[in-house]
Amino acid sequence: MATTTLPESDLPDPGLDAMFAALADPTRRSIVARLTKGEATVNELAEPFAMSLQAVSKHIQVLERAGLVSRGRHRQTRPCRLELEAFRAATDWIEDQRRVWSERLDRLDQHLTDLQRDRKNP
Amino acid sequence: MATTTLPESDLPDPGLDAMFAALADPTRRSIVARLTKGEATVNELAEPFAMSLQAVSKHIQVLERAGLVSRGRHRQTRPCRLELEAFRAATDWIEDQRRVWSERLDRLDQHLTDLQRDRKNP
Repeated sequence: MATTTLPESDLPDPGLDAMFAALADPTRRSIVARLTKGEATVNELAEPFAMSLQAVSKHIQVLERAGLVSRGRHRQTRPCRLELEAFRAATDWIEDQRRVWSERLDRLDQHLTDLQRDRKNP
Repeated sequence: MATTTLPESDLPDPGLDAMFAALADPTRRSIVARLTKGEATVNELAEPFAMSLQAVSKHIQVLERAGLVSRGRHRQTRPCRLELEAFRAATDWIEDQRRVWSERLDRLDQHLTDLQRDRKNP
């Protein structure tokens, strides 16, 4: 297998791999969106879906393995909660990219403004 | 197969599915990070990786199918560029979640401050 040498900031991050893979599913994104609002039991999470509790549990397990969701110890309900610190790693990566391209677009914008001004006042 | 009934804002979005799946790989995230800085040819994108051009091309194809990357028409180089509008859909989803939980944490913070104040000045 080929090995990769990546810039330090882009080093392989198995955490990010699993997190983005977990988010590549509408049911799991919906569960994450629900949990941003606070803890919920599996029953509560399953409510909006026309699928079995077992199917919803499997989606939750994928989110748990990705480190995005953890479950409480209360024996009956074991409420699910979002692991904010883990999710922050995914949001940080995305926002880093947005920042870089925003800065680039701002520079382009400034360059075009400069060009127009130079044309008006040569 | 079970069908799902989701809140409108969480409707299945095959675009987001493909985008998050594409980002679940360190080489592809590295390519996206490079392209936020501007267009690049496949040769330029392949430079930091100790893998074949063909392997890098395959990763670029995954990003193209996900709508995140498009390629220019210049016959020789066909430079790759990031499709900002498409990528924005992924960043918007992530940032929506962060906004919801930030507001929740702010409210919790306010609540704790209120509690402390009430304890000091009963």
